[in-house]
Amino acid sequence: MSYARLSARCRDVSHLDHAIEMLTWDEAVMMPRGGGAARADTMAALATLKHRLVTAPDTADLLAAAQGEALDEWQRANIREIERRFTRAAALPEQLVAARSRATVLCEQLWRDARARNDWQVVTAPLEEVLDLTREVADRLGVARNLTPYDALVDGYQSGLSTADIDPLFARLGAALPELIDRRLGTQGEPLPLQGPFALDAQARLSRDLMERIGFDFEHGRFDVSHHPFCGGVADDVRITTRYDVENFFSALMATLHESGHGMYQQGLPSAWREQPVGDAAGAALHESQSLLVEMQMCRGRPFLDFATPFIRRAFAIRESDPAWSTENIERTCLHVTRSLIRVDADELTYPLHIVLRYRLERALLERKLTIADLPEAWDAAMQELLGLRTRDDYRDGCMQDVHWFAGLVGYFPCYTVGAVMAAQLFAALRREIPDVDNRIGHGDFAPVRAWLRSNVHGQGAKHAGVDLIQHATGSPLSGDAYLDHLRARYGDSMR
Amino acid sequence: MSYARLSARCRDVSHLDHAIEMLTWDEAVMMPRGGGAARADTMAALATLKHRLVTAPDTADLLAAAQGEALDEWQRANIREIERRFTRAAALPEQLVAARSRATVLCEQLWRDARARNDWQVVTAPLEEVLDLTREVADRLGVARNLTPYDALVDGYQSGLSTADIDPLFARLGAALPELIDRRLGTQGEPLPLQGPFALDAQARLSRDLMERIGFDFEHGRFDVSHHPFCGGVADDVRITTRYDVENFFSALMATLHESGHGMYQQGLPSAWREQPVGDAAGAALHESQSLLVEMQMCRGRPFLDFATPFIRRAFAIRESDPAWSTENIERTCLHVTRSLIRVDADELTYPLHIVLRYRLERALLERKLTIADLPEAWDAAMQELLGLRTRDDYRDGCMQDVHWFAGLVGYFPCYTVGAVMAAQLFAALRREIPDVDNRIGHGDFAPVRAWLRSNVHGQGAKHAGVDLIQHATGSPLSGDAYLDHLRARYGDSMR
Repeated sequence: MSYARLSARCRDVSHLDHAIEMLTWDEAVMMPRGGGAARADTMAALATLKHRLVTAPDTADLLAAAQGEALDEWQRANIREIERRFTRAAALPEQLVAARSRATVLCEQLWRDARARNDWQVVTAPLEEVLDLTREVADRLGVARNLTPYDALVDGYQSGLSTADIDPLFARLGAALPELIDRRLGTQGEPLPLQGPFALDAQARLSRDLMERIGFDFEHGRFDVSHHPFCGGVADDVRITTRYDVENFFSALMATLHESGHGMYQQGLPSAWREQPVGDAAGAALHESQSLLVEMQMCRGRPFLDFATPFIRRAFAIRESDPAWSTENIERTCLHVTRSLIRVDADELTYPLHIVLRYRLERALLERKLTIADLPEAWDAAMQELLGLRTRDDYRDGCMQDVHWFAGLVGYFPCYTVGAVMAAQLFAALRREIPDVDNRIGHGDFAPVRAWLRSNVHGQGAKHAGVDLIQHATGSPLSGDAYLDHLRARYGDSMR
Repeated sequence: MSYARLSARCRDVSHLDHAIEMLTWDEAVMMPRGGGAARADTMAALATLKHRLVTAPDTADLLAAAQGEALDEWQRANIREIERRFTRAAALPEQLVAARSRATVLCEQLWRDARARNDWQVVTAPLEEVLDLTREVADRLGVARNLTPYDALVDGYQSGLSTADIDPLFARLGAALPELIDRRLGTQGEPLPLQGPFALDAQARLSRDLMERIGFDFEHGRFDVSHHPFCGGVADDVRITTRYDVENFFSALMATLHESGHGMYQQGLPSAWREQPVGDAAGAALHESQSLLVEMQMCRGRPFLDFATPFIRRAFAIRESDPAWSTENIERTCLHVTRSLIRVDADELTYPLHIVLRYRLERALLERKLTIADLPEAWDAAMQELLGLRTRDDYRDGCMQDVHWFAGLVGYFPCYTVGAVMAAQLFAALRREIPDVDNRIGHGDFAPVRAWLRSNVHGQGAKHAGVDLIQHATGSPLSGDAYLDHLRARYGDSMR
């Protein structure tokens, strides 16, 4: 009875989430600039309504009463997730939720234009406001969840993850990566350039075709263009975006396949639990693991490239005999390592260093050890230390390159690298269980990968508490072993 | 104090309306088919939340108390509109609102596919359900507003309009039109055909260009493609759609200009009253008057065609000397009268007969004098009587051609022809006040028309009660005189 009432309320919340997700997508992909202020007000109002539903005064009593009811495993997990959401939401006053929603929507709108103009000054005050509100949120969540403020934010994105896991993992990567990068840079062959231009409609057709082949369901999803690739929407209506560069089709293609990994996770969530918290994804790091499993583990691997090369050549009407367009050269391009400024364009091997930088700086910002005014300099110093690059006066490719902080997302960045670690661990398990998987992928048969993910990850929803899913899916707790093995196997052998 | 509380609640309602409007647009323009069920649930949930806000238990007391407060003219009008919405919403139980929202969204989704397949059987049961729910709504609204059920529905679309106005107006049109149509058909010259194909991107560019010139603001609006042209969105973010035919650019162009009239109305609503009922449009017939004023009164008139012809020729790379593409022939095409099956493609002169048909049938359906099973036959009989055409077994171009009934819109159709009547009356007043307006339009200067509409119609919002706006804007009550004068002037002279 109490469970049934909680569950009915969750359905209402899920409908508000549907609206919020679709309006967020619309804002990034469709909305004319002049619609921004009205949209920010609407988003704040929806966030407030949602907050009011999640924190309804009888929730604590209903949760307590539901514990005594006869529930199955999924229902118990659902109660766990409802309680988690309730505790977090109840820690925040309604005005703070509305103010933060409005401030982040407006700051993100500003950032979009300001970044294009490399205009740092215009975003500092709005960013300060977003950061202040985020600090207040983190403080309150920390008290409610008995965590440090930063851990309370991380816990909001990935339940079961904390700095206690991240610090040793990042320390291990920080120790191993520089040597691996140096060695690779000294020995890797220079790929032959893939000469453009690449017509945008040909790029879009190629992306769509490969998305569909690996298993993205267009009956329950769309594919559009936005300023920054992302995956939004809801399980039955997934909205994927990418952006094209006429001189470089690879970047858009890989971004699309990456987002398709996110999209297939959403589409594969347990359909019997569509409107309940337990039917959601198990967290942001797990979500990133699915995009990185598809992009990094699968699509940048040799079997997939063997399959995809003829499609790529056909898309751009390239002769088969052109040596730049051999699978070997495409693989070399795919795995080419460079120290570069932009996270989203970084190769697999240097990418974690971009995350380490952001992890350090966002903790310092949240804990008031770094001010917004000093951020560009701190960014520059960290880029020098970690990647040997300067970013002075280049805000666009420096501390303004990512939307996250402007959108109030502090504590999210570690999920990318934890997701990469999870992806390697999951793919290793999948390979053990499907010995001929490389051969199947090489022939364009993605059914075994899809089935394994559907059964071990997607279809599990949030039945297991956050990171615990990794133990259930692979038989071992989260560990960096498979990830480092993967990086060493792929980038250690300098003759590839 | 009471006014302020009511007004704050209206802001929340307007944010839900924003979400509902955008999700409606998304469903028609963007949503993949598989997202339909989840979307229907979300729309029902938003309709329920909105209903709950509008009917909050303290509303009646707040309204009574607000009457005693010192309010200005706009605030008093706002109270009038709030009361009107409250009375209508309070008449409907929440379950009925949710059930009707879900049923109409699902029935409309079904209709879209079924119409394409000319499949009448598959929609009869869902349409029956929608009609039953609509009857229940009409009965309850009728009791609350002391109106007949059908009038209660009409009153929901256009306050101040009822069958007591519509019946004599339609009788007058029914008496005058057949003779006018017969005479025109017997004497009009056959236009030279405008030979396609017309590339869709060239059509889109032409539409966009002319939309912008007449005054649609793309900073606060978008222009896309959908199954059926419409105008949605909110005042600061207007969403216009059209659909293209590669063999006939005229239909899409005129539909676009028509929708632009709606869009400019929304964009011109009083910005100080954005989130309040008094800041909304004054009703559906007035909304249609704005689209028809732009399309029929202005854009199909000779001055506009003088201006637009060179743009049209340029868009499709046509030689100036081609006789089919002279302004005279384009005007002849524009004003060509044919008895045809499809309302949205009908010419100005036969269009009202399509409305008379729907007006008769929907009243009979609502009043249980006609069943869904008998609808195709009744449609066919009325088409024979009014336009001399048969539609047996052609459901697609018969009783399935319009979305309205499938979407639960009963009582809306008369607004089209009442809107045409209003458009003629408003344009006649505008012409009296701006004597050189034809000359200005002929030179592509739309500022005087825009300014007059902004000041007399758009910027008035719902300050005047519904149809009363016509008296304020033109100095006379609503009357068919200007409309019949216009039709006689344009179509009576057979030598044009």
